Amino acid sequence: MSTRATRTYELDRAHVFHSWSAQSTLDPMVVEGAEGSYFWDGDGNRYLDFSSQLVYTNIGHQHPTVVAAIQEQAARLCTIAPPYANEARSEAARLIAERTPAGLDKVFFTNGGAEAVEHAVRMARLHTGRPKVLSQYRSYHGGTQTAVNLTGDPRRWPNDTGTAGVARFFGPFLYRSEFGATTEEEEAALALRHLERVVEMEGPSTIAAIVLETVPGTAGVMPPPPGYLAGVRALCDKHGILYVADEVMAGFGRTGAWFALDHYGVVPDLITFAKGVNSGYVPLGGVVISDHVVETFSTRPYPGGLTYSGHPLAAAAAVATMTAMRDEGIVENAARIGADVLGPGLREMAERHPSVGDVRGLGVFWAVELVKDRATKEPLAPYGSSSVEMNEVLTACKRNGVIPLANFNRIHVVPPCTVSETEVKTGLAVLDEALNLADRYTV
Amino acid sequence: MSTRATRTYELDRAHVFHSWSAQSTLDPMVVEGAEGSYFWDGDGNRYLDFSSQLVYTNIGHQHPTVVAAIQEQAARLCTIAPPYANEARSEAARLIAERTPAGLDKVFFTNGGAEAVEHAVRMARLHTGRPKVLSQYRSYHGGTQTAVNLTGDPRRWPNDTGTAGVARFFGPFLYRSEFGATTEEEEAALALRHLERVVEMEGPSTIAAIVLETVPGTAGVMPPPPGYLAGVRALCDKHGILYVADEVMAGFGRTGAWFALDHYGVVPDLITFAKGVNSGYVPLGGVVISDHVVETFSTRPYPGGLTYSGHPLAAAAAVATMTAMRDEGIVENAARIGADVLGPGLREMAERHPSVGDVRGLGVFWAVELVKDRATKEPLAPYGSSSVEMNEVLTACKRNGVIPLANFNRIHVVPPCTVSETEVKTGLAVLDEALNLADRYTV
Repeated sequence: MSTRATRTYELDRAHVFHSWSAQSTLDPMVVEGAEGSYFWDGDGNRYLDFSSQLVYTNIGHQHPTVVAAIQEQAARLCTIAPPYANEARSEAARLIAERTPAGLDKVFFTNGGAEAVEHAVRMARLHTGRPKVLSQYRSYHGGTQTAVNLTGDPRRWPNDTGTAGVARFFGPFLYRSEFGATTEEEEAALALRHLERVVEMEGPSTIAAIVLETVPGTAGVMPPPPGYLAGVRALCDKHGILYVADEVMAGFGRTGAWFALDHYGVVPDLITFAKGVNSGYVPLGGVVISDHVVETFSTRPYPGGLTYSGHPLAAAAAVATMTAMRDEGIVENAARIGADVLGPGLREMAERHPSVGDVRGLGVFWAVELVKDRATKEPLAPYGSSSVEMNEVLTACKRNGVIPLANFNRIHVVPPCTVSETEVKTGLAVLDEALNLADRYTV
Repeated sequence: MSTRATRTYELDRAHVFHSWSAQSTLDPMVVEGAEGSYFWDGDGNRYLDFSSQLVYTNIGHQHPTVVAAIQEQAARLCTIAPPYANEARSEAARLIAERTPAGLDKVFFTNGGAEAVEHAVRMARLHTGRPKVLSQYRSYHGGTQTAVNLTGDPRRWPNDTGTAGVARFFGPFLYRSEFGATTEEEEAALALRHLERVVEMEGPSTIAAIVLETVPGTAGVMPPPPGYLAGVRALCDKHGILYVADEVMAGFGRTGAWFALDHYGVVPDLITFAKGVNSGYVPLGGVVISDHVVETFSTRPYPGGLTYSGHPLAAAAAVATMTAMRDEGIVENAARIGADVLGPGLREMAERHPSVGDVRGLGVFWAVELVKDRATKEPLAPYGSSSVEMNEVLTACKRNGVIPLANFNRIHVVPPCTVSETEVKTGLAVLDEALNLADRYTV
């Protein structure tokens, strides 16, 4: 390692407390630079970023027009407080509203996805005057207390304290159906019936909102079956419940559409976003708010805010990101890569590898579910944990220069939306070889 | 207004949902640019920023070395996910830890102050295994649900839903003493006795942490009397309660010291920060964690995180900000301005204006409390609200080119730490004239 990288490593171990980790067990890679679909470490090793970091660098690393926009905005005006109007903030809000369904025209900016969910829940509670929010098992909504309390994955468990007003239900997930369904159609119908029952049992008049990732992401990339989201919308309408679509991970090109919602033609009351909106080049998130919810806060003040709401530097990065995505056909690229290269490539691998229980996804948003036994679907790592077997696969990928995202028994193949066909093929070849290791553990 | 500013205004009204506001009543100033202690609007009017925006641009607007550092980091590496080590992140953590007391050496980075408080509370609950957190009436801790639930100002009221595990107490505030004290010494003793009673009544074994702004900020800039914080520390030690010092607003030069804690010589278990750490040029906050709390998460994973933790662009801005503050003697400037110019100037004005009930502060962190009657201390605007009288004063300041921060019946004089003696005198002259309007309403 270079002296510079060594110093970075040592200072990190001395002074940086890392997310979601046991601090003494860490051995972080020093990242020195990145470009497009690649990043490199302090030893000069180059890695294909099949993770888009934490599924957020949708435009790839160091996109030149976004970098330039940040530099120009920095020279002009780094920051100004939320009460003022500012060109970058106005323009970012306009571009976001342009991509959301009609009737969702106002944007409340936050610093990230967790805060977006916090504020969406607050808006829903105040708009409806009801205390409770429903969310799915197998979901992730952020790391602050309300957001993590909504979260339906094991990261919630140690945090189930100090928060109230959330109830959970099972969403559609045919591969591990809660309802014994055997077709997508049946899964949609049974999952809707289940949600209806939960609403009935919790009391419709107590429920402010149903919060749903349009395509649950970290929990397993599970595109909902046709009809499910329309059914959720109808159920919400029936009971005066708000439908909050969490598009933090699925939005801004990830599924091959601007929003994952676009695949399903439903219109939620609130949309939360972050990550892809400016590829995380500057922290940014927010809530797109439907007219009827805005109306609630027309003459009554909205009791929420933050110092950096609508931060000019973050907004300028969003404007440049959305502009580049449009001008360079980046969303279309993600759709094409998914349909023609990544989807077919993963499905073909699934046929050859007995360790692959399921492959599912859209655009550049895919999960490969690894199992010991295709019949029983016994996962290669237990729910909420990792395993020696999974680590072997991941280590092999890394050794061969590819970094996917891993969660329990799953490998998420989530490259930037800008990824090329050649890069995808390179990455799939490495994954293909690594899966041989997993195959050894199958029955 | 220029065509450009007009468009910014119109897009803002069409698409931007603003913090803490009734949306239909807004008429935001379009800010086109800023430098040092000034910013200007779309009509070419220039304003002396006696608010540091929302008390965060401690280094002034557009400091050239911070702007350059952002531009350089943008060219090098805008973003990398939290699991990796990165030079800017390591260096920012080192510089922050260098300024905090010994034994507080690790930094968990967030996007802002609210998230910092969310995570500090989580760390305290998990470290102690206890559910409850105590906070002060007359305090502000952030806009996310747990943070706003801790907050002891009226912005909490509409948000008291979906959160549990907080109890509140009165802190020391001699001017409006809860305890009938007549001296600072007595106020400290009685406020400590009160806190001890609250701890006793809530049950010491149920309390994870006491969360305190070292100098409560938005709630009224109330430097605690000598001995109070040392007493809090002792009480925490006695019962195994963690002491969380919220330095989001008071830290990084605001009080004329790197941390407000430095004035009092106490060592908390957790320090939350944001704002001044990089003057909000890029969203950043965090928690500095004492060794014994880090130890809790040594082999047991810390169940919290966020996509942008330790964001390289934000960290690079922090490194440049702290470096400039040190090299240019900016903290010392804030101390000198407070002791020699701002403090004496405000106190002198208080003698001449019957509408000034109290003046208090440290460094460039001052509050002027306006009253109708010095004897009864009846405020010029009710608690939790504004008034015609206050608006007259604020409008006069703005008309004459000075923008302080207003809260209820108070005017906060909180210029950047870089403010010059001449600028302070200019601003005070404008405030002096505006206070004549308030004087008309006194008995």
